[in-house]
Amino acid sequence: MKGIRLEEKTWEEAAKAIEDSGGVAILPIGSVEQHGKHLPLGTDSYVAQGISEAASAATGAVLIPPMWFGWCPHHMVLPGTVTIRPEILIEYLYDVLGSLSAHGLKKVVLVNGHRIVNIVWMQIAAQKAQEAFGIRAVIFDPAYMSKEIVSALDFGPVGHAEEIETSHMLHMHEHIVHMDRAIDNPVKKTERYSVDPSYALDTLCYVPSRKSDQEKHAKESGGTSGSPTKADKNKGEQYHDHLVQRMVEVIEELRRKDV
Amino acid sequence: MKGIRLEEKTWEEAAKAIEDSGGVAILPIGSVEQHGKHLPLGTDSYVAQGISEAASAATGAVLIPPMWFGWCPHHMVLPGTVTIRPEILIEYLYDVLGSLSAHGLKKVVLVNGHRIVNIVWMQIAAQKAQEAFGIRAVIFDPAYMSKEIVSALDFGPVGHAEEIETSHMLHMHEHIVHMDRAIDNPVKKTERYSVDPSYALDTLCYVPSRKSDQEKHAKESGGTSGSPTKADKNKGEQYHDHLVQRMVEVIEELRRKDV
Amino acid sequence: MKGIRLEEKTWEEAAKAIEDSGGVAILPIGSVEQHGKHLPLGTDSYVAQGISEAASAATGAVLIPPMWFGWCPHHMVLPGTVTIRPEILIEYLYDVLGSLSAHGLKKVVLVNGHRIVNIVWMQIAAQKAQEAFGIRAVIFDPAYMSKEIVSALDFGPVGHAEEIETSHMLHMHEHIVHMDRAIDNPVKKTERYSVDPSYALDTLCYVPSRKSDQEKHAKESGGTSGSPTKADKNKGEQYHDHLVQRMVEVIEELRRKDV
Amino acid sequence: MKGIRLEEKTWEEAAKAIEDSGGVAILPIGSVEQHGKHLPLGTDSYVAQGISEAASAATGAVLIPPMWFGWCPHHMVLPGTVTIRPEILIEYLYDVLGSLSAHGLKKVVLVNGHRIVNIVWMQIAAQKAQEAFGIRAVIFDPAYMSKEIVSALDFGPVGHAEEIETSHMLHMHEHIVHMDRAIDNPVKKTERYSVDPSYALDTLCYVPSRKSDQEKHAKESGGTSGSPTKADKNKGEQYHDHLVQRMVEVIEELRRKDV
Amino acid sequence: MKGIRLEEKTWEEAAKAIEDSGGVAILPIGSVEQHGKHLPLGTDSYVAQGISEAASAATGAVLIPPMWFGWCPHHMVLPGTVTIRPEILIEYLYDVLGSLSAHGLKKVVLVNGHRIVNIVWMQIAAQKAQEAFGIRAVIFDPAYMSKEIVSALDFGPVGHAEEIETSHMLHMHEHIVHMDRAIDNPVKKTERYSVDPSYALDTLCYVPSRKSDQEKHAKESGGTSGSPTKADKNKGEQYHDHLVQRMVEVIEELRRKDV
Amino acid sequence: MKGIRLEEKTWEEAAKAIEDSGGVAILPIGSVEQHGKHLPLGTDSYVAQGISEAASAATGAVLIPPMWFGWCPHHMVLPGTVTIRPEILIEYLYDVLGSLSAHGLKKVVLVNGHRIVNIVWMQIAAQKAQEAFGIRAVIFDPAYMSKEIVSALDFGPVGHAEEIETSHMLHMHEHIVHMDRAIDNPVKKTERYSVDPSYALDTLCYVPSRKSDQEKHAKESGGTSGSPTKADKNKGEQYHDHLVQRMVEVIEELRRKDV
Repeated sequence: MKGIRLEEKTWEEAAKAIEDSGGVAILPIGSVEQHGKHLPLGTDSYVAQGISEAASAATGAVLIPPMWFGWCPHHMVLPGTVTIRPEILIEYLYDVLGSLSAHGLKKVVLVNGHRIVNIVWMQIAAQKAQEAFGIRAVIFDPAYMSKEIVSALDFGPVGHAEEIETSHMLHMHEHIVHMDRAIDNPVKKTERYSVDPSYALDTLCYVPSRKSDQEKHAKESGGTSGSPTKADKNKGEQYHDHLVQRMVEVIEELRRKDV
Repeated sequence: MKGIRLEEKTWEEAAKAIEDSGGVAILPIGSVEQHGKHLPLGTDSYVAQGISEAASAATGAVLIPPMWFGWCPHHMVLPGTVTIRPEILIEYLYDVLGSLSAHGLKKVVLVNGHRIVNIVWMQIAAQKAQEAFGIRAVIFDPAYMSKEIVSALDFGPVGHAEEIETSHMLHMHEHIVHMDRAIDNPVKKTERYSVDPSYALDTLCYVPSRKSDQEKHAKESGGTSGSPTKADKNKGEQYHDHLVQRMVEVIEELRRKDV
Repeated sequence: MKGIRLEEKTWEEAAKAIEDSGGVAILPIGSVEQHGKHLPLGTDSYVAQGISEAASAATGAVLIPPMWFGWCPHHMVLPGTVTIRPEILIEYLYDVLGSLSAHGLKKVVLVNGHRIVNIVWMQIAAQKAQEAFGIRAVIFDPAYMSKEIVSALDFGPVGHAEEIETSHMLHMHEHIVHMDRAIDNPVKKTERYSVDPSYALDTLCYVPSRKSDQEKHAKESGGTSGSPTKADKNKGEQYHDHLVQRMVEVIEELRRKDV
Repeated sequence: MKGIRLEEKTWEEAAKAIEDSGGVAILPIGSVEQHGKHLPLGTDSYVAQGISEAASAATGAVLIPPMWFGWCPHHMVLPGTVTIRPEILIEYLYDVLGSLSAHGLKKVVLVNGHRIVNIVWMQIAAQKAQEAFGIRAVIFDPAYMSKEIVSALDFGPVGHAEEIETSHMLHMHEHIVHMDRAIDNPVKKTERYSVDPSYALDTLCYVPSRKSDQEKHAKESGGTSGSPTKADKNKGEQYHDHLVQRMVEVIEELRRKDV
Repeated sequence: MKGIRLEEKTWEEAAKAIEDSGGVAILPIGSVEQHGKHLPLGTDSYVAQGISEAASAATGAVLIPPMWFGWCPHHMVLPGTVTIRPEILIEYLYDVLGSLSAHGLKKVVLVNGHRIVNIVWMQIAAQKAQEAFGIRAVIFDPAYMSKEIVSALDFGPVGHAEEIETSHMLHMHEHIVHMDRAIDNPVKKTERYSVDPSYALDTLCYVPSRKSDQEKHAKESGGTSGSPTKADKNKGEQYHDHLVQRMVEVIEELRRKDV
Repeated sequence: MKGIRLEEKTWEEAAKAIEDSGGVAILPIGSVEQHGKHLPLGTDSYVAQGISEAASAATGAVLIPPMWFGWCPHHMVLPGTVTIRPEILIEYLYDVLGSLSAHGLKKVVLVNGHRIVNIVWMQIAAQKAQEAFGIRAVIFDPAYMSKEIVSALDFGPVGHAEEIETSHMLHMHEHIVHMDRAIDNPVKKTERYSVDPSYALDTLCYVPSRKSDQEKHAKESGGTSGSPTKADKNKGEQYHDHLVQRMVEVIEELRRKDV
């Protein structure tokens, strides 16, 4: 297992690792939810964990065991999805941050593998923890941290289980990606609406879809929004490396700041 | 007072207005917080209320009395700021939406005058209300709904109390805008960070600033981030009209959808 | 707009106004709920805001933007009513008081336009805020603060949308009072029960009516309890001036006390 | 032990008692708090329990085990006082009412021995339970239900541990009333303020005293407000009988109403 | 009434009693729930109160008024049962402990008459109070504190309303024990499951029964699990004395420890 | 990776696995907390996950991603420990169970690797979920499910990081067990107190230690309670196999029961 993993250490080893890290922790936060017919339910968690492990190994930041579940009420229409209320996730994350802070991990990178949906409650928890514990918490989200590489690689827009996620999973966990079942469902042009952080036009803000809307959508597309058949393992690797490199930069910057 | 204001009507008049509206309500949500040395504390609320009134008048959507206060813990360092915990705002808005739904207002435009900070708790409340009451709620935020006009008018980046907000306020409430006290504090280029929804580079996600960081910032700039001296009343009018027009389009679209 | 309104001031102006006020704030708290066929839904909020504005103008106490919504589950049977759970209102008000306290507004007059129903949660919030923030909060309610003038003016008993509220609204907002639609529904003599604070006989304490009881009531009376046709604009003015004068006295007394 | 006590019955006996009662329960709610130098801490609970037992015995209404503790943060300055947060008391009472309702006790007399302070949270709990469980709950408070007899007996104003409570306790539990330690501390004329429900002048609404104010008060008076030395055992009996008779009337009225 | 009862004392007497007690309080916590056809609903509360009174009298520890209700959702299938949500009981007990702590009662014996079901929430409340108030709280449960005597007296296994509880009640409150209605329903041998703390085999942990399972059970057995017809008043006395003696030992040990 | 892991499956595969499982899920719940100088912080989570994986593989029950963190406030005195408030863990687990139930996983084995401390909140969550979702949830705890094998293997009493846990970890994850650093700290004979579920004498119930007590303890023993130097890898294997076999039996029994 890669990275400076907290769970593998005795408390004496943990004390040393915390000191060596400069007080920086990485906490991967994902989601277990439908990802179309070709990607596993754990995709968002694999994303968060994969880039976190690599950045921990590269920097010595302490890797915290992951939060597997996120907020995804709109995906409950397809089997296997697990959703937690955001008000509970806020308090749960708040307690994790309070515990880490008590041991000197006062600079925390919250790594989100679930894109826009998790960010809202992570913001609230991060602010609350910053105020209560005097820590620094930043939110690192692949969709917001890959605008440049996504453009360079000429990926299509951010959707769900689309070519970006699929390419990334091909790079990390090819054995559980089923390209033969991938179905394209190109991101629809909706009036004044997009979940792509690079969207340049006027847009309403995101609200998770209503169940009735989502049911129709799930039936049509098998849960995919985008063009997974365009996925490319090599692009996935470049995408992965870009994100890891960005996380390394963020950690180095955190180390330069005071708490 | 402009718009189809709920508070001015008897319950019989309200029943008729609700029917005439096609079940569409507009709820302005603002913030009372420092806006530099030249703009009033209520700026965000004035923004939400101003565009909401105009869109209500133009469409017959029912205008709900405003929520004056929002989430702004980072602005508490300057006098007059009022902040409410997001978990309370979520439940408060949830109850408002439940009440409106009970009377047939099942399509609601949540108009946010406070940009990125309010959006998080509004998303949670909107999802929760959609699921519990079977309503449709959309979040209309000026910063996200003005990408096109901001670019066309050649405004600088979104900051705080900058030329965009100042121009808008000059158009709406010139008598409480004090251009003689406006101080420019150009938006800093921070590594991998921006609150402008049009920002095209990789970025961390927003977390309200820590109090210690904010105190330094407030002292330097008087609370402004951006270049208010470039504000222009005429541009403010075009900006305002653009937002109102966009809200009219959103309302028309909501009317076409089922609940 | 009358009064020393917080929302109209820059933070520098607010700082000065707070100092000039002696640390006294006025917070109007109303309700949006059915008020019979002749009064607008916002009546309780207009009442709270109207007397608060006048007292702010007369004393220099800082006028805080209003809380429009209150607790009125029993009025949900008629269109347009908005009710918030009292446990949410408590926390919301608590946060407002915490914010005001942080800026030096440590003596607060909570002005209730919604009579007995709002008072309960305001008491809980006021105590909680007094203990947490070391402030002084008093609850100023028109029904309890007008026993003397109501008797002097020979008004009938406190009901709902009755001649007292109607007279007051005629004085403040005549254009949205519809006397032609006013229907009398004299306050019933109920065994051991009254909501009038001047009631001299044994009585059970108030509990908001059950929905089934309220539905019957609403149909019979159109939501009115009392005799609005006896309303008198001139009496309304005297009633208004009495309340404003009382609030001025309360503010002067608060100024004499320590925090 | 007097009354139809739930705790003494087997579930079969309880089922019969519930049927015989017409579905009416009596729930005594008190407080354990300082009552001056001459009355025991449990006074408010003894009051609630004493009149409840007698009314249960007289009517066959089912007597529920008491809630001993109430909300009394202002009395914490003297030893032995126990206070529970009102938001917890609300939920606790709500659950009791839900349980009673499940067994057919759908008409409940909430008997408060703690006067104005407990009433607020009891109102919120009663409304919430009425809406959720379809029950009828009334709040029976000695101070509000004794206006007539207090006037007839020529008692002084309601204060704390004053001649009314002391007379009542002399009638019920003379062995733990210490008249030799009773100290008079006549109710002060405060501008626009009183806790007596018969007070005919303009008044602010009740908020529990701030700890600093209460500390001064406690030292001066030993916790008493009023004139306990005027207590009279015979008057206490008449007062007691009046309250019991009133509760019997309330129960009979509840039996006539539907649920 | 036996024991050093807080409710009977004035605050001056309470102050002295607290000092004399060495800061030790006893808080009896029970349940009002079905106990078969022969035992009263209040059995668990009588158990907690009975041994607490005796231990208070023997040691001078201050006896706090009881919490009558506990957590017993599974017994709601039979009339008269009252259950409170554990999250509410936690906060309620937390507030009681906070109040006691404020007056110097910093060593508290929480006496549970309801066996395994109450213990869970008591543990959470006790930990929370220990951390917040710096007190010591121990949980004294008859089932766990009687392993030795139960074995010596050759009682059968712990069930519900079985010979142990019945014997104890015969000793304490014979007049409300109806031996003529006692029905045996021997504790079933369930694979890998027991609620007896002396059970020596592998076992799943306790979870309150599902309502559907409980309904079947209640109909078969009248709510009893065990052999109440084997109850013996004399054994009940020895059992009672054993528990009181154990509580005396616990109190003496608490007195020796620091806070 | 062993077992039928939910996260590895697409939603179509998950649907099939759920059907094949007979609706049975296994949810491992651990803790990240100090385990002496020789065992890793993740020990409790490894325990829960290790036996869950094996039982999933053996039975086809669906393995849910783990909850890594538990309730362990008393271990916060040593570095690396992460504790979550039990009221948050309850709601978090409740949501997981609600999600699983929505997809047909209505029989859930909650596997606890953290012994007595986690059980309390798991009981509350399990009851709440059973009532709300109509599921069956059982709590499988190694300490309670190994009484027989622990006796047969002649292990010493349950403590913390003692020979039982150490043997188990030697079998599962020898590379992160540091026998050279193991320090014996035999379980103390405390009057009327033990955390061993096989303890046959009278005992108080468990409450997590106060921080001050725990600090002393941690310094003396390095966090161990028991005799880890007696650990034996072969015994660890037998212990492991016993637990897995027991879980298989529990799952088979669940399959025979209705929901």
